[in-house]
Amino acid sequence: MKNIPVIMIIFGGSGDLAHRKLYPALFNLYEQGLIHDNFAVIGTARRPWSHEYLREQVSDAVHETHNEVNENDLKEFASHFYYQSHDVTNVEHYVTLKELAQDLDDRYCAHGNRLFYMAMAPRFFGTIATHINDQHLTGSGFNRIVVEKPFGRDLASAEELNKQITASFDESEIFRIDHYLGKEMIQNILPMRFTNPLIKNIWNSDNIKNIQVTLAERLGVEARGGYYETSGALRDMVQNHIFQIITLLAMPEPENISAEAIHKAKGKLLASLVMPTEADIKQHFVRGQYAGSDTTFAYRQEPNVAEDSTTETFAAGEVKFSKGPIAGVPIYFRTGKEFKEKKSRIDIVLKHMNNPYGRAHSNNITIVIDPQSEIYITINGKKIREAGIRRENLDYTFSKEEMAQVPDGYERLLHDVFVNDSTNFTHWSELKRYWEYIDTIEAAWQKENESGQAEIPQYPPYRMGPKEACDIFESATEHWIYE
Amino acid sequence: MKNIPVIMIIFGGSGDLAHRKLYPALFNLYEQGLIHDNFAVIGTARRPWSHEYLREQVSDAVHETHNEVNENDLKEFASHFYYQSHDVTNVEHYVTLKELAQDLDDRYCAHGNRLFYMAMAPRFFGTIATHINDQHLTGSGFNRIVVEKPFGRDLASAEELNKQITASFDESEIFRIDHYLGKEMIQNILPMRFTNPLIKNIWNSDNIKNIQVTLAERLGVEARGGYYETSGALRDMVQNHIFQIITLLAMPEPENISAEAIHKAKGKLLASLVMPTEADIKQHFVRGQYAGSDTTFAYRQEPNVAEDSTTETFAAGEVKFSKGPIAGVPIYFRTGKEFKEKKSRIDIVLKHMNNPYGRAHSNNITIVIDPQSEIYITINGKKIREAGIRRENLDYTFSKEEMAQVPDGYERLLHDVFVNDSTNFTHWSELKRYWEYIDTIEAAWQKENESGQAEIPQYPPYRMGPKEACDIFESATEHWIYE
Repeated sequence: MKNIPVIMIIFGGSGDLAHRKLYPALFNLYEQGLIHDNFAVIGTARRPWSHEYLREQVSDAVHETHNEVNENDLKEFASHFYYQSHDVTNVEHYVTLKELAQDLDDRYCAHGNRLFYMAMAPRFFGTIATHINDQHLTGSGFNRIVVEKPFGRDLASAEELNKQITASFDESEIFRIDHYLGKEMIQNILPMRFTNPLIKNIWNSDNIKNIQVTLAERLGVEARGGYYETSGALRDMVQNHIFQIITLLAMPEPENISAEAIHKAKGKLLASLVMPTEADIKQHFVRGQYAGSDTTFAYRQEPNVAEDSTTETFAAGEVKFSKGPIAGVPIYFRTGKEFKEKKSRIDIVLKHMNNPYGRAHSNNITIVIDPQSEIYITINGKKIREAGIRRENLDYTFSKEEMAQVPDGYERLLHDVFVNDSTNFTHWSELKRYWEYIDTIEAAWQKENESGQAEIPQYPPYRMGPKEACDIFESATEHWIYE
Repeated sequence: MKNIPVIMIIFGGSGDLAHRKLYPALFNLYEQGLIHDNFAVIGTARRPWSHEYLREQVSDAVHETHNEVNENDLKEFASHFYYQSHDVTNVEHYVTLKELAQDLDDRYCAHGNRLFYMAMAPRFFGTIATHINDQHLTGSGFNRIVVEKPFGRDLASAEELNKQITASFDESEIFRIDHYLGKEMIQNILPMRFTNPLIKNIWNSDNIKNIQVTLAERLGVEARGGYYETSGALRDMVQNHIFQIITLLAMPEPENISAEAIHKAKGKLLASLVMPTEADIKQHFVRGQYAGSDTTFAYRQEPNVAEDSTTETFAAGEVKFSKGPIAGVPIYFRTGKEFKEKKSRIDIVLKHMNNPYGRAHSNNITIVIDPQSEIYITINGKKIREAGIRRENLDYTFSKEEMAQVPDGYERLLHDVFVNDSTNFTHWSELKRYWEYIDTIEAAWQKENESGQAEIPQYPPYRMGPKEACDIFESATEHWIYE
């Protein structure tokens, strides 16, 4: 690992994301020697913290996420942190920030390298980007910017935000982060697809009947009802995580594993993304809201949620591509709050094949992403004492030791930013395509809302979402594998 | 299950096989209601036992193999057993046996059905068969004969024995038993191959690099040195078990799962069995003898074994077919005594495939037959913290509960004889082909012995056989998966 000199400026330095994810991830990179001497981090936010107070916060954040900490290392690490109180709309503050960055650059020999991290509420992203440009905060070395999701709330706002950011940064300098792409089993999709003849051989529309992506959350919106009202399941989960997963599942084999080749293969696939018609949406898409119970709130009863809210806490649908290895294969997705359990998984369902034994189950390949990393393959074998075929699950579950080795997604992705590897970040062209798709669904649902005909299905909490989601399939022989 | 009336005559009724396997298996069938009222078993052997003594033996045999026994059932079951002292060369004794069978037929309403079971030393099989014919022991109902292995010791003696048996029995009435075909995972080969698109898709010479069959025994010859000197690993294990397994692995898909269709598919395959040349045998076949150690005998030091014995306690080689789904794919086998552990397994090794990740392991499908029933698939996944590909074993191991349900091979195969299902028995045409192959190897080895050039490799006990077995492969990229 090499030491990468840089001054990192975190907008939202007093926030939850920085505390829970970024500071611990940076410490891990520090402990691995990726960053050691020539770096400083400026945390910036509205609160009037001191440098020392930020360092205490950083130290707390590391302790909270680590069982064992080398205290000397941590002290040395924390000494690289600086705090700058900052109002994102105040021009003067950007000037002060720039001066602090330059001072630290001299002190830490950072070679004019700057890394900006937008870790605050997304409504400020545009303003910050504009000020970075207007007040020339970029350095004389490399400049990179990490932008948290959501990147816009529809195509138009995403385009506006992108314009503001590209005023100072090239596409190659923009790292649109989606922490799902840092997850172990998501990063395992391409290696598994392309290094296993057993899997590659069946990864085509002759053999795959459908693919099912489920991202289920156990929790409701909790205190975030106000924000959630501006988003919903489609924007919050489908536009980013689910589409990224689907892209990895359906893309053609890249020429090599460079970021460029992978994004090229993704682009090729996304050009063939089939936009659903209104009829498709009526038939193959379902939204819902959790209905509450004797002991839990319905979504519409949550704080800061409208009583007649049309924001969906559940979404399911069908995505298809007209090209690529699984052209025409239905890819069903499902995501929502207040499922029976937290579970992220992908089920690849193979077509039946005539066989001399008659009735057999489908072969499935299941990739479990959360909470445990797991792969299993369901095959048929003979029943033990009688005639007939039964299912057998061939399973590979990551051991505790292996799970302990799995780095947090943020650590992995921050590392990628440091070494300038954009493989696991969303390119603008991809993002644009995802938003086009989401806008299409949102528009159809909006139309339904306005027609007054639509009743948004209300689903019982801590089950599997609305029963209507069982009817989105193309044929009667399809059903959700995860139940 | 239906009650099948029959008088069963076991030649070798006081022997080890009857005691350990046949009596417990018959009791299990009895407990399942397959046989209940209309049956009697005549145990026959040289020893002067009484009916009562045999019944005690049967009762003991059941107790020894069962944790829990319904004593009333067992008593009733044992009452169906009769003993007839018998010298296989004495004509008079066959007459007495015939009369006893007829008496019991009347008493048990057995409809003239006869089931003969040859469970004694193989050298008597021909004599018994001849006398069954000469003294007209067959009944007026169905007649079936079960013949234990070995069926001959080369093609000529097998043909002679077959002639003696076919004097009284049609091919469809002869059940040449190979208890390996009663094993759970062996019976699972065809269902697994033909009901799983995942497996069926790669079961061809485009994808399979080689197949490896290992039947390893931990024990030496023990007290059976005298018999073993007339046999050897090739005749004892390869001619029957290994060839049966290979046939199941390489045969084309049968039209249906009737015994007829399966034997037809086997026959089709075996017509394309490639007979090895002397050069092939030199290059791709290895024999060996265990060498002993400070604390164990060498084979040549065992009781009743010649000091210059050329009988092999280990054999490895390569089998190929010119037709069928895996035409041309090398099928390597290995079997022997004094391996590091008792283990029967099949490894299907897939070819490498170019992939953008570079170096990857082969995908393997492993079927473990003994001592545990298990299937696993080795696939590639990403390494957790670094670039690169690692192996992951997707595993299905039968649970204790499942293993407890697995019937003993003899129970399964006896049941098949009762219901006249010949699927898992060896047809004459198959057996003939196997012997032709074995005779070819034996002849080449005999020639080597006579030339005086051959040194039979002596291998250290409780390891993996002779090191020469690592050199039988067609290419340097092949090696034994099980090590």
